[in-house]
Formats: sequence, structure tokens, C-alpha cells
Amino acid sequence: MKALTLQAPKTPISCQDIPQPTPTKGQVLIQLKAAAINHRDVYITQGLYPGVVTPIILGSDGTGEIVQLGEGIDPSWLHESVVLNPSIGWEDALGVQPEEYQILGMPQNGCFAEYIAVDLKQVHKKPKHLSSEQAAALPLAGLTAYRALFSRAQLQKNERVLISGVGGGVALLACQFAIAAGAEVYVTSGSEEKIEQAIALGAKGGVNYKEENWHKTLLKKANGGFDVIVDSAGGDGFKYFLDLANMGGRIVFYGGTRGSFKVNPQKVFWKQLSLLGSTMGNAKEFGEMLGFVAQTQLIPVVDSTWKLEDGVAAFDYMDQGKQFGKIVFTIT
Amino acid sequence: MKALTLQAPKTPISCQDIPQPTPTKGQVLIQLKAAAINHRDVYITQGLYPGVVTPIILGSDGTGEIVQLGEGIDPSWLHESVVLNPSIGWEDALGVQPEEYQILGMPQNGCFAEYIAVDLKQVHKKPKHLSSEQAAALPLAGLTAYRALFSRAQLQKNERVLISGVGGGVALLACQFAIAAGAEVYVTSGSEEKIEQAIALGAKGGVNYKEENWHKTLLKKANGGFDVIVDSAGGDGFKYFLDLANMGGRIVFYGGTRGSFKVNPQKVFWKQLSLLGSTMGNAKEFGEMLGFVAQTQLIPVVDSTWKLEDGVAAFDYMDQGKQFGKIVFTIT
Repeated sequence: MKALTLQAPKTPISCQDIPQPTPTKGQVLIQLKAAAINHRDVYITQGLYPGVVTPIILGSDGTGEIVQLGEGIDPSWLHESVVLNPSIGWEDALGVQPEEYQILGMPQNGCFAEYIAVDLKQVHKKPKHLSSEQAAALPLAGLTAYRALFSRAQLQKNERVLISGVGGGVALLACQFAIAAGAEVYVTSGSEEKIEQAIALGAKGGVNYKEENWHKTLLKKANGGFDVIVDSAGGDGFKYFLDLANMGGRIVFYGGTRGSFKVNPQKVFWKQLSLLGSTMGNAKEFGEMLGFVAQTQLIPVVDSTWKLEDGVAAFDYMDQGKQFGKIVFTIT
Repeated sequence: MKALTLQAPKTPISCQDIPQPTPTKGQVLIQLKAAAINHRDVYITQGLYPGVVTPIILGSDGTGEIVQLGEGIDPSWLHESVVLNPSIGWEDALGVQPEEYQILGMPQNGCFAEYIAVDLKQVHKKPKHLSSEQAAALPLAGLTAYRALFSRAQLQKNERVLISGVGGGVALLACQFAIAAGAEVYVTSGSEEKIEQAIALGAKGGVNYKEENWHKTLLKKANGGFDVIVDSAGGDGFKYFLDLANMGGRIVFYGGTRGSFKVNPQKVFWKQLSLLGSTMGNAKEFGEMLGFVAQTQLIPVVDSTWKLEDGVAAFDYMDQGKQFGKIVFTIT
């Protein structure tokens, strides 16, 4: 089968012809229809992830059809259209991921291939209103956005939400989820075009964080502060979130691409703010996320579709950060 | 009546003879038995609080006996021994304090006096197992500690807790509350003696934060990290809490005497930490706190008792920070 693999650390990926996997006991074989790229995949090829093992098939996000059942799997699963939960080994009962936690696509083989064999517990039915490409846009980013917004920040209907850097995969889904949940959503981006695209999806407005005093402009535009702020940058700009947050506000972050940030404790305790770290999510949250998407008929944004053979170009495109929505491989 | 008053901003307090207040509709007159000092009182005299009005009777913490009823008060309240809730205007239903929120003792007259007239809703029955001095040690510090530990950090039985700067009034009550709730509690202090005193109260151990690498010593002594960390210092030392926190840990702070602190976002999101600001509490939490103290037969630590006439000396003693437990005026 064709598969995008990393043959050695810090080398480009390459499309290889490798043997098709066989499902073992409790597993299913999935013929993948679509798979989406995450920054994680790119970072792994750049040697920015610890514990990289090679050779490996990358890819945390995949959808496809079950075409073969391992021992002990109920026959009704055969030919089911499914989406994969990239969180491996995080039981529902645990508040946080355990030490043995893994993300699909490293060190286990991932979804940039024609077939994948996975444990049945990683498999969820695909929301019917979505194409394979649209559903492939959901898993990692959708799970991260869902946990951050709902489990961690406890977003309530009619609250005011700020999503920073809306061009990111998680940020854009957080924006869509918050809108679908009935929140009033504002965004920031370094690109006017992405702000306009977010507004077209239902955001109330946004500002360019490259402009001076963007936080003051935002407070004016939004006519007030925010109950929930979702960020993945950190860095010097984080301090403005303490001013932008309403009393009792929750600032949730799942990344920190701009590094450390400074906190004035007086602002945090007097406003009773919560600064909440979040990463990925458990199987229960993955199921809830798919249910929420089905119920709200939400359609994740697909920026562009690519072939596995064009993997290197797709990775380069991801790394440039010009996309709005997910970069997806159409596989079969 | 005798009352410790601030006659003008940035002047020392003085013991004055002033007219006794009269309870208006919905109020009760309380003959105060004891009142405790908080740093807030000292900060107010030092001009470190905004919006100071004078002349004013300071004092947020008081206990006493109801000796006169205003119009509309049920006669059963007469002669009741009571403790005052220092939170004014924070309805139970609100997650955070409203704009009109006040703390007893500024701008409303407080408890460093022989009598005080207050709205009945500020009044709670005194836990029977406590002396007036012990009960006077509870209100502001106990409310702050209770909300921080239980409402904000959601402390669970058998969790591991770190209380920094255990000599502080809130910190010491947080230490006692956490022990009474069945947690395993460690402390830090700049004083070996205070660490020993905390251990005598049931803490498992502690370290002196003035020692180099105190955080490493603590990890060894405690044989692991902490689920809940309670702090009021912030500053450079705060970064160690991110290392000392267990996965899913909650770091709650109600002060920041050492100023701003730096946060490495990677540590916070991967460990899924929560950094929670907290201040005071509402009437429901005040009632719950008193119920918890009664149920666990907890006895707040009184460092020393003073007369109102020695108010200046008592304030100076507070400012030196050598006390362990509350500094309390015995009034009648």
C-alpha cells in the first residue's frame, strides 16, 4: 500500500510502497478515505518532538471504511464509515492523560496511508452529514478545541468568546464550536482575510494582532470584554488577555508558540480569572464532540485537498501557515 | 463607645470615644466581644488601598452578641452570639463579586469598636465550640481560604496540598482546612519555627523557601508533587509551582505580594494545570465555611490578644509578620 512515511528523524517525509497491515484480535482494518495534517506532523519531521521512532507512518486524523475485522469484533462493524480518535490510552475516568498516553501517528503508525489497523476502541461512526474530507478535518483539532472550550473553560450559551490566531486548526474549530454553542465570538489574526473568513462563518468581528493597541481596538469593537479566551500563542501578547477578560473569565490555552508569558497576580485574583492549560481529550470527549458536530450540523472548514504523493508539498504549504481550515489528503 | 479609627489617610489609627450606632430597619446592634486584624487593615492605614474614606472604624473580622434589634428583625435573634460575614453585596448566585462589592471595615465602619450596627444578612451564628477570640479569627481569612481551596481548587480528600508562606492568616487557615478535609499537607515558610508549628497542627512536613533549591528538597521530602498549591506571593518563586504541581494540578492564589510571575505555557498545557485567582467569597461560602469548622471542630490559631487601646502596637506587630495565627482584640 501507499504510505507517507518518515524514514529517519529530521528528514522530509516520502511516499513509500509498504505492506498492508493485518488487524489482530480486537482490531479492525480501515481503508482510509481521507486524512488531515496537523502541525504535530510537521514538527515531527523537523525533529521538534521528543521520542521520534522511525520508520513511521505519520498522521493523527483519518476517516475511512472498515474492510476487515480482527478476532472478536462484532460483524455489524464491517463496511461502517468511521473516524479515528487520535487519543490512545486515556480512559474516560481520568481527568488528565496518563503517563502511557499516545497520539495516533507517533509512535504508532498513523493515517497517511491507504490502510490502517487500529483497536476498535479508537473507532467512532462518522457524522453522516460530513464528507470523508470534512470528517478528517475533525479529530485532533476538534477534540482539542472541544475539551478546551467545554470541559475546561465550561463555555455557556450567550457568553462572549475571543479566539486568538483564528487561522490555526484548533482555533478555527474552537471558533466554529463556540458559534454553534450560541456564544458571541470575536477573533484575532495576523491576516485581514482570515478575520473576514471567520466573520463569514458567524464571528461577530475581529482585529489584526499586528496592529498597535489591537486590544484597545478590540474592546471598542466588541463593546466590552470576554468570558472565555482561547489562545495557543502565549508570549508578550498574553498580558492583554488579563485586561480583555471579564470578571470570572477563563483563559484556556493548548499551545504556546510565542513562549513564556508574564502574569500580574493582582489582576487575576481580583477578577477571579482562571488560566487553564488543556491538551487533546479523552474518548468520552471525542464522542461528545462528534455528537455536538452532528447535532449542530457543523461543517469543518477544509482549506485544500491533496494526494498522498504530494505529501512534501502539502507539508510545506502547512508550514507556511497561509491556509484557512484543514489541509486534507484525499486517499481513496 | 471606644473605637479604633483612622482619622485621615496615611495616619496611624487611634482609639477614640465616639457615639454608639443605632440599628436601622433590618439591622441589628452587636456588642463586639472580639475582632481580628487583617493585613488589609494595616494596608489601609499605610495608604495602600484605593478609595479610603475617613474618619472610619477599621476591622473586617468581628464576633459579639446581638443586644438591640432594628425594625423587622425576628426577636429570637436577641442575645444571639454571632460572627460577621465581611463580604457585603455579593449575592450567592453570582460566580464573582459584583461592582458594588464591599468589605466590612472600609468604606462601612468595621469591628474595632465596642458596638457595630449591621444588616442582619451579614450575621451568622457563632460555632459553639469556639471562644469569641477564636471565632473572630475566622471571617475574612477563613472565607478566603475556604473559597480558594474548595470552590476554586475543588480540593478532594486524600489529595496532596502545598501551602506557601504558612505564617499568613489565610495560608494558615487553608492549611488547617486542608488537613481537616483529609488532605496530605506540606507547607513552606521563611521561618523554621512556623514550619514546626504547622507540623504540630497536622501538616506532614515543610521546607524553608529561603534555602537554595527548596523546591527540590520539598519534592524529595514529600516524595512527589502536589494536586493543589495555595499561594499569595507570586513573584520569581512561582515558577517552581509549575514543576511541583502534579498532572491536572490546581494552583490557586489570592494575593501576589512579590509581584508578577512568569509562566511557561508548555508546562501548563501538557500537565493540564489550572492557575486560579480567588478573592474573598459569597454568603453561601461563608455559611459553608462556618459549617465545616463546626463539623470538624476546627480551632483557628490565635497568636495573641490585645486591647483596643493598644491598637497601634498591635498594628505594628502585625506589620512585622512574626505572628503565627491571628492577632485578636479582646473587646468586652
